[in-house]
Amino acid sequence: MRVLIINGPNLNLTGKREKEIYGATGFESFLEELRNEFRDLDIEYFQTNLEGGIIDRIQAAEGIADGIVLNAGGYTHTSVAISDAVRATGIPVVEVHISNIFAREDYRHVSLTGPYVAGIISGFGLKVYRLAILALLA
Amino acid sequence: MRVLIINGPNLNLTGKREKEIYGATGFESFLEELRNEFRDLDIEYFQTNLEGGIIDRIQAAEGIADGIVLNAGGYTHTSVAISDAVRATGIPVVEVHISNIFAREDYRHVSLTGPYVAGIISGFGLKVYRLAILALLA
Amino acid sequence: MRVLIINGPNLNLTGKREKEIYGATGFESFLEELRNEFRDLDIEYFQTNLEGGIIDRIQAAEGIADGIVLNAGGYTHTSVAISDAVRATGIPVVEVHISNIFAREDYRHVSLTGPYVAGIISGFGLKVYRLAILALLA
Amino acid sequence: MRVLIINGPNLNLTGKREKEIYGATGFESFLEELRNEFRDLDIEYFQTNLEGGIIDRIQAAEGIADGIVLNAGGYTHTSVAISDAVRATGIPVVEVHISNIFAREDYRHVSLTGPYVAGIISGFGLKVYRLAILALLA
Amino acid sequence: MRVLIINGPNLNLTGKREKEIYGATGFESFLEELRNEFRDLDIEYFQTNLEGGIIDRIQAAEGIADGIVLNAGGYTHTSVAISDAVRATGIPVVEVHISNIFAREDYRHVSLTGPYVAGIISGFGLKVYRLAILALLA
Amino acid sequence: MRVLIINGPNLNLTGKREKEIYGATGFESFLEELRNEFRDLDIEYFQTNLEGGIIDRIQAAEGIADGIVLNAGGYTHTSVAISDAVRATGIPVVEVHISNIFAREDYRHVSLTGPYVAGIISGFGLKVYRLAILALLA
Amino acid sequence: MRVLIINGPNLNLTGKREKEIYGATGFESFLEELRNEFRDLDIEYFQTNLEGGIIDRIQAAEGIADGIVLNAGGYTHTSVAISDAVRATGIPVVEVHISNIFAREDYRHVSLTGPYVAGIISGFGLKVYRLAILALLA
Amino acid sequence: MRVLIINGPNLNLTGKREKEIYGATGFESFLEELRNEFRDLDIEYFQTNLEGGIIDRIQAAEGIADGIVLNAGGYTHTSVAISDAVRATGIPVVEVHISNIFAREDYRHVSLTGPYVAGIISGFGLKVYRLAILALLA
Amino acid sequence: MRVLIINGPNLNLTGKREKEIYGATGFESFLEELRNEFRDLDIEYFQTNLEGGIIDRIQAAEGIADGIVLNAGGYTHTSVAISDAVRATGIPVVEVHISNIFAREDYRHVSLTGPYVAGIISGFGLKVYRLAILALLA
Amino acid sequence: MRVLIINGPNLNLTGKREKEIYGATGFESFLEELRNEFRDLDIEYFQTNLEGGIIDRIQAAEGIADGIVLNAGGYTHTSVAISDAVRATGIPVVEVHISNIFAREDYRHVSLTGPYVAGIISGFGLKVYRLAILALLA
Amino acid sequence: MRVLIINGPNLNLTGKREKEIYGATGFESFLEELRNEFRDLDIEYFQTNLEGGIIDRIQAAEGIADGIVLNAGGYTHTSVAISDAVRATGIPVVEVHISNIFAREDYRHVSLTGPYVAGIISGFGLKVYRLAILALLA
Amino acid sequence: MRVLIINGPNLNLTGKREKEIYGATGFESFLEELRNEFRDLDIEYFQTNLEGGIIDRIQAAEGIADGIVLNAGGYTHTSVAISDAVRATGIPVVEVHISNIFAREDYRHVSLTGPYVAGIISGFGLKVYRLAILALLA
Repeated sequence: MRVLIINGPNLNLTGKREKEIYGATGFESFLEELRNEFRDLDIEYFQTNLEGGIIDRIQAAEGIADGIVLNAGGYTHTSVAISDAVRATGIPVVEVHISNIFAREDYRHVSLTGPYVAGIISGFGLKVYRLAILALLA
Repeated sequence: MRVLIINGPNLNLTGKREKEIYGATGFESFLEELRNEFRDLDIEYFQTNLEGGIIDRIQAAEGIADGIVLNAGGYTHTSVAISDAVRATGIPVVEVHISNIFAREDYRHVSLTGPYVAGIISGFGLKVYRLAILALLA
Repeated sequence: MRVLIINGPNLNLTGKREKEIYGATGFESFLEELRNEFRDLDIEYFQTNLEGGIIDRIQAAEGIADGIVLNAGGYTHTSVAISDAVRATGIPVVEVHISNIFAREDYRHVSLTGPYVAGIISGFGLKVYRLAILALLA
Repeated sequence: MRVLIINGPNLNLTGKREKEIYGATGFESFLEELRNEFRDLDIEYFQTNLEGGIIDRIQAAEGIADGIVLNAGGYTHTSVAISDAVRATGIPVVEVHISNIFAREDYRHVSLTGPYVAGIISGFGLKVYRLAILALLA
Repeated sequence: MRVLIINGPNLNLTGKREKEIYGATGFESFLEELRNEFRDLDIEYFQTNLEGGIIDRIQAAEGIADGIVLNAGGYTHTSVAISDAVRATGIPVVEVHISNIFAREDYRHVSLTGPYVAGIISGFGLKVYRLAILALLA
Repeated sequence: MRVLIINGPNLNLTGKREKEIYGATGFESFLEELRNEFRDLDIEYFQTNLEGGIIDRIQAAEGIADGIVLNAGGYTHTSVAISDAVRATGIPVVEVHISNIFAREDYRHVSLTGPYVAGIISGFGLKVYRLAILALLA
Repeated sequence: MRVLIINGPNLNLTGKREKEIYGATGFESFLEELRNEFRDLDIEYFQTNLEGGIIDRIQAAEGIADGIVLNAGGYTHTSVAISDAVRATGIPVVEVHISNIFAREDYRHVSLTGPYVAGIISGFGLKVYRLAILALLA
Repeated sequence: MRVLIINGPNLNLTGKREKEIYGATGFESFLEELRNEFRDLDIEYFQTNLEGGIIDRIQAAEGIADGIVLNAGGYTHTSVAISDAVRATGIPVVEVHISNIFAREDYRHVSLTGPYVAGIISGFGLKVYRLAILALLA
Repeated sequence: MRVLIINGPNLNLTGKREKEIYGATGFESFLEELRNEFRDLDIEYFQTNLEGGIIDRIQAAEGIADGIVLNAGGYTHTSVAISDAVRATGIPVVEVHISNIFAREDYRHVSLTGPYVAGIISGFGLKVYRLAILALLA
Repeated sequence: MRVLIINGPNLNLTGKREKEIYGATGFESFLEELRNEFRDLDIEYFQTNLEGGIIDRIQAAEGIADGIVLNAGGYTHTSVAISDAVRATGIPVVEVHISNIFAREDYRHVSLTGPYVAGIISGFGLKVYRLAILALLA
Repeated sequence: MRVLIINGPNLNLTGKREKEIYGATGFESFLEELRNEFRDLDIEYFQTNLEGGIIDRIQAAEGIADGIVLNAGGYTHTSVAISDAVRATGIPVVEVHISNIFAREDYRHVSLTGPYVAGIISGFGLKVYRLAILALLA
Repeated sequence: MRVLIINGPNLNLTGKREKEIYGATGFESFLEELRNEFRDLDIEYFQTNLEGGIIDRIQAAEGIADGIVLNAGGYTHTSVAISDAVRATGIPVVEVHISNIFAREDYRHVSLTGPYVAGIISGFGLKVYRLAILALLA
């Protein structure tokens, strides 16, 4: 099984800034742990700050990935275009958020991608990626 | 570790009605599977249709449970009182929903308990309970 | 044919308080008239002030009642949980209101159960129960 | 007793179009049944697609009808002018809707005439006219 | 100078119904007084319950009336179409309301025709027509 | 192919008033051009200021027209009744607006008929009728 | 009869600034005209930029004025306190606006004093004061 | 004089949890103080987490209590049903809140029971119960 | 202990106007009672109709009063400026309203000063001042 | 005449996914047809998933294209930045949508670019591009 | 060049209270620095807590000041009257705020004076006055 | 001190288009002036139409710039992602707008980046960049 993790804007800063919200672990080292834990899986990772870059990647995953773990960051709450890409793809998508979006600003309580994903996991720190892979495996 | 699963209104119908939304497995048989999988855990289960009954149980769990998996059903979207109970308790709570609340009616996109739980898992069918326990274990 | 009448919060006060809104007849004596008029029917009556109590009763009616006449009182306008119970049941439900909900406060113009019932009758005093039974019979 | 039934816009299509919503019976044949059932009553029928035509008819009914059964169709949700006519008339008005307005689009959940009628019956198909007459008789 | 008074829906009931709001004088007898007072003016009067009828009349006034006194009744608050007719006409229009629209229901506080008239006079009973003519004369 | 063009309120003023919005060509002379261009088509034209008149005409077109070009003018933004008529008809309807409704007042950005038409063409002056016929032909 | 004219904030600038909205006549010279026209009346004039100053003056008018013509300027749309003063006074108040408040910014379409005055005259330039006095006289 | 104090959901936790909001004194010991201070009064105390339980108790107080001090907790902001019970009772009710509801979350600024109580006291800690009794005594 | 009572706009009319809302006792005579009851206190009283006058007084109280009882009248619902003054002061402020603000117009349900006061007492007539002093004393 | 067609996010999937909404024809083969039909025109085509990429292209078209056909896809409803680019350009822009935006989700009923384009054509499938070119030609 | 600085409500407390928001420097000493820095300018300073006082001063500045630096404090967000005064004046006005209004409560994100000033500077502490003078000088 | 100026979408058109809003000076020549004026500073300039490009640049500035002057253009009002980048960076950011955002369309009155910047300067033309640098220097 091939899993594609897509991280959106500012998630390359995980572990470097706003640690009280996103924790102190960098994503790269976490990714290593993840690959160690799921040795049977082919886990690909992609990060971009570009809204359209996320769309490009979702489209390109067709036939290449069996599941997508998507953390669209700030675009989660504003992007009809990414929402359309998620709806159009044939690959199951699990939406994750490192922090609990309901515990933050009002504008983060809305997810435009939410209606088109298989499910949402929000608020357990980096563990949400691990849980998302487990959800895809089941 | 002692885990308390609290199911709110109409969740006793799981597997019996609206199977296109909630699936065909009854909660009791699923619970058995869960206990088999997590043999080291003491998993207690409680279901009620009463808003205040959920509050009573959360309060009574103090000192008895180490984690709560809460599916408050329809009360999720309307109950300030349950939200207050979750905020007051010292036990970590994971909120789960069998269906994806963002893929349903607008009034289900809001969670009053959301700001006070450790995290939310929504939309993978009964598997959300399994993922929630994993989240509590981590 | 077995008909179950469920009355929600404060409807036990009918005939005792706020007579300018709900009229001067007590529900018990009205119920007697109703049973006299519809001698072929088995009319069961249940009143509770508990939101979850209404849900319990709707669930318990499965296989026992052929039609439900539901006056959920103040819960009509706020309860997603009762709304879910009405949607889940296989028994046809007729929603009634003694007073005309559109002629009262704004917050009473909304019915959360409304979308899932067979029909709504509002505003003719206790006669709404009689009309509801006629609607179920037809 | 003289009853005037007023049907508003598009209700002349009943039985011809959108049968999944309004049923397969034409209003004229239903009217015949109704007159047969209530032989003691003088049932007059009027249909118009004109907002002002409904107002004209309500005004003209003064002294001629003892009760009005009003289905203002789409004007129900938008017409302050018809609402004013209903409020001004001395004749009791029962508002009916063939389909359940709470089970349809949001803009149909509002009734501008609602606050000024004796009561509302919505959602049992053409039977609502029969129930409305019974309500007027009581 | 030729003045056209246009009265909209239900204003033919003035003096007959809802006298606590609209007063006890019928419009016809009031009109006579008005014509006596303004003997130099050619005062034409038109009443209709039809939204489109008001538009027809405004259009037909072109070249025939020098000023319009418009009481569009309930259509004031809902009709984009009449608003468009007022905007399109070259004749100055004074908007009047017998009752004080700000002292009534919220939905009467809005005037769609308001932005396109010369001015608004609301709330002095039938005197508003007299004041409107004085405003047109000035 | 028989095409019916329905123009709503104030559109009889095209070419006479508000030329900066609607242009300087009268609809009748434009209609002549249109008939010259589409000689194979039977183009019928109807204008009314009455909301109900539009509904009457849509209903009467059944079996007589193969396509409707509808410019409901100000009723576009307020009429549930015309919207219902469009939904009920079996004839394809193309909605047109001479001016660009998104470039005007906020209340013109909403179209109640919009959800039920084949498509919308807005903002190219009288050319929208020509484009609408081309859309029907295709 | 003693009439008190109260002008609120910035109305001392009438005739000096924003003449395209408020006209070119200064209020003092207009006042002279007004007193000439209504020689039988005792017309007192008061202007202040202070919200509380308007309240003080309304209260002080008790027993001294028989009618108040109030142009509260910008406070019309925001002042609950002046609204309360108008409601409390026993003197009839006519609300006036030099410009047509419905033809200006949205926030000027609301009048907090509106519900408590005898009537409103808006939009004919300084003539509104003359019409208001006529309304008080009638 | 007999006073009934009704405490709603989570108020049994007073003194145990969220002390920064609700203070460190348990309600039972505070109650003792209160009874000592008002020795002439018969002070009864009732706490429940059930919405309907509060309604039951208000209804049962008829003829038994002379005044009710009601802290409906989280139900204050959401319960039409309790609001109806307060409106129906003949006993004067004083609404209290331990914390200042205007200084907390937006959804706590609304009180559905508010319109039907004698008065509201909010924000002085447990002292609000003492002040409420004084208000009832006066 | 020195207590400063500040009354805002129109509260000088207490006992004179709108007695059905504010009662029949004038504030001055009530003040005398209050001073008799609390002989140990130095109770100062200030009334103004000016928004800024209330701010001036709150600022001037620094070091002179130990507690403020504030009834800002209509400014309660609109004044950010007074709200800022209350927040800035070091003196505890108790907000009072003679009538129950939740039982009146919607715009009175909001208090801009509310978030910054020690507590709110609303709806027991002039007694609220007495209760407020007791709250300050405690 | 040089026409530039700009397609926004996910429109490269036309003919491949969600065919029930966007049809079964791929854009490339459709483009060929279009060029065959309009042999005199120089039709350039550009697709990007990047919001800023659309802006870049609109700016670069200056002096190179005589008309733009813009389908900004999901950005239509959210992008102030593209809206600004359309407003700034000197080239006439026709906005098109393959599906009828009024027949879809609420958030698609809004067009931020709408106010600045020459006109909008929505809902006839790929034919909208053909109609747009005709509109530009006229 | 003559510059008038107008400070609104509570700004006389700068340096005394809420120093974490407004800083520790008193305005008078800051003013001295400012006058030292801009020795060529005639800098006049005015502070008032009265809404109308600000209007009085803006009007009085006509012909006396060449530029106004306005910090209307809490009135910024609520005062149509001051907004009208700013619009009416012929003197350029620069709006300043010591704190960043977008980083504070929602109701401070709105500026009623904003649309009529030359520009806004918000959030650099007392430096905003210095920057405003520089902006006026340029 | 190293200052980075970031200009967002369409700001490369400054001086070329919409000169009535943005002025006639091109940014490049203005930049030269700026560098001449602040010879001690290292002023870097970056413009992009890409939302994600702005984020990339803010992140890349870490350790390289001592202050950022950000004009995010149309993204200011819609981008949660840029807002997150501003919040995450350790470099002080000054937000500028060439035109006065409060004097333009409603949707420009909102700034998502506003809460996280040091301050905002809006509305003095290109001078805002100069003032922003002065603010950073202070």
